[in-house]
Amino acid sequence: MTHTDLPPLSLSSRDNFFQALTNLPIPDQGRINAARDRQNNLTKPQGSLGKLEELSIFMAGWQSQQPPSLDKVSCIVFAGNHGITAQGVSAYPSEVTQQMVQNFEQGGATINQLCNLAQAELKVIALDLNKPTGDFSQEAAMTETDLCLALQTGADAIFPHMDCVLLGEMGIGNSSSAAALSYALFGGDADQWVGQGTGLDTEKLAHKTQVVAQAVQRHQQNIQDSFDLLRCLGGRELAAIAGAVLAARHYHIPVLLDGFISTAAAATLVKTAPDALDHCQLSHLSVEPGHLHLAKALDKEPILHLNMRLGEASGAAVALLILRASLATYNGMASFEEAQVSRAETSS
Amino acid sequence: MTHTDLPPLSLSSRDNFFQALTNLPIPDQGRINAARDRQNNLTKPQGSLGKLEELSIFMAGWQSQQPPSLDKVSCIVFAGNHGITAQGVSAYPSEVTQQMVQNFEQGGATINQLCNLAQAELKVIALDLNKPTGDFSQEAAMTETDLCLALQTGADAIFPHMDCVLLGEMGIGNSSSAAALSYALFGGDADQWVGQGTGLDTEKLAHKTQVVAQAVQRHQQNIQDSFDLLRCLGGRELAAIAGAVLAARHYHIPVLLDGFISTAAAATLVKTAPDALDHCQLSHLSVEPGHLHLAKALDKEPILHLNMRLGEASGAAVALLILRASLATYNGMASFEEAQVSRAETSS
Repeated sequence: MTHTDLPPLSLSSRDNFFQALTNLPIPDQGRINAARDRQNNLTKPQGSLGKLEELSIFMAGWQSQQPPSLDKVSCIVFAGNHGITAQGVSAYPSEVTQQMVQNFEQGGATINQLCNLAQAELKVIALDLNKPTGDFSQEAAMTETDLCLALQTGADAIFPHMDCVLLGEMGIGNSSSAAALSYALFGGDADQWVGQGTGLDTEKLAHKTQVVAQAVQRHQQNIQDSFDLLRCLGGRELAAIAGAVLAARHYHIPVLLDGFISTAAAATLVKTAPDALDHCQLSHLSVEPGHLHLAKALDKEPILHLNMRLGEASGAAVALLILRASLATYNGMASFEEAQVSRAETSS
Repeated sequence: MTHTDLPPLSLSSRDNFFQALTNLPIPDQGRINAARDRQNNLTKPQGSLGKLEELSIFMAGWQSQQPPSLDKVSCIVFAGNHGITAQGVSAYPSEVTQQMVQNFEQGGATINQLCNLAQAELKVIALDLNKPTGDFSQEAAMTETDLCLALQTGADAIFPHMDCVLLGEMGIGNSSSAAALSYALFGGDADQWVGQGTGLDTEKLAHKTQVVAQAVQRHQQNIQDSFDLLRCLGGRELAAIAGAVLAARHYHIPVLLDGFISTAAAATLVKTAPDALDHCQLSHLSVEPGHLHLAKALDKEPILHLNMRLGEASGAAVALLILRASLATYNGMASFEEAQVSRAETSS
């Protein structure tokens, strides 16, 4: 089965978005079973490679190719600016978004070094940085048209030849948007979703929590579905991540989501389609406290626990190394028969 | 400061062993401070790379070179056989140790694939596989002479040009030895240190626990120091790991310990010298339940949590990927000044 002859995914209207969300491909169960059988015949006690084994089965199921491959991996960092920064919710000024995009292009940022190491092609896509979204404490973040443009930008960044896609973001103020999206989506207390972002002090953290809580209260009655969520409380780079997740699903491409903000952006899709993130892994557990709650709400176990909280797909690029370890063992190891190694005396 | 002109470490007698244990080099505090300063000037919020930042500072301090490097990394797997297998404590027959050594040499095992991926040179050192240690439920595992030979074999595997050393093991029955060493060292209940190893069922697990508990009780009064521990309850490959840890310390080489068994082998050194493992990282947290208790007793946070339980340095090889990510960012990133990125508005 090949997915390279599928037409591109259109998310250019609300209807197209819902059509994509209600026609989600599923993994190849035959490949999953075959991959599990193969794992059980490799020269190691069954299950002893833990997450590495799980990831190889996940990859085999979604790629529907044997052997699963990581030859062509893209790391996409979407960048956007946010009107909510007018409320004093970030430790850094908005111009840092553009400055960091330049840093990405000059090769000086974390993600440049990690993509070189993990052999991912880095693509940085800045969405209208000189046109911040609306301040969602006062109005909807985006118009329907702006949202569709951002969704489509995300979808257009995904190509059917990709073996795996890493998704990340850069946008001063976007941890407030991620907190608001998560709170509106999963409820609980506002303060469980709000964290220090790039480094707020305690006083400003309390203020950020209040801003997020009031904003969600303001919009809650207008939020019925995934589209409303992104339009009211999202951001362009977050909508682009959601669009990219949908396009990757369309082409059966596994996805590594970065941290709290990328996960929150992708999680908006489960409001309408609970299984929308079945092809996605959480790369790492961020220090940002809302990420643990998101991971639990999505019933996903992050691959890494490294106390990172940077964004810009940095956690995803490190997790790609683990994915490479998974496929290196799955594809390269000898079976018990090939290596003439005795099996366990007791069945396990 | 260079450590390549240091003479080799002799562990050929009990006295030499204690001399090494009581002359432990310490890290370079100047390099540690300089590395921390550098991390705080790179284009990211301070501390946002979490464990990656910590590891770079750790590497800088022990290597005493700027920039810290991972050009020459060795992965050493020591293999040994154990008389304790006569007690029915393993799911696999003893001949698997030799069969897996052949699998390593033929390139078909997990560790071969992971060393290729992580760019570590794999060295497999089998210690007298046709001469298992004594059954430690009945007698001391080794004579003083045998122990010194094994310690020296470990030390001789380490060379001063190495940037980092990964240490792992293969030995049917050695999770019983690791459990006994840990129990004798840190106390508690025997069953907290005993796990399923390569895959015991519940009934055999209870038997293994009883064997370990009684063996430790038998030897306890003869165990006063690190040397006694290894002699009474250890194994050749475990003693070799302890010797390699000491030789790495002698040359200021950072070490990645693999899982439960490797950690238990290295932990024997803290009985005599509490700071003997300061130059070692725990690569991952094994599923083997005793590993969590060991990590806590040693006050070390494992780098990875991937539910692995294979041994053969597999967790260390995966952790080397994280160490590479740490140094790639530390060595390659631009500073705020170089990239002309604005700093945080609030001090953090």
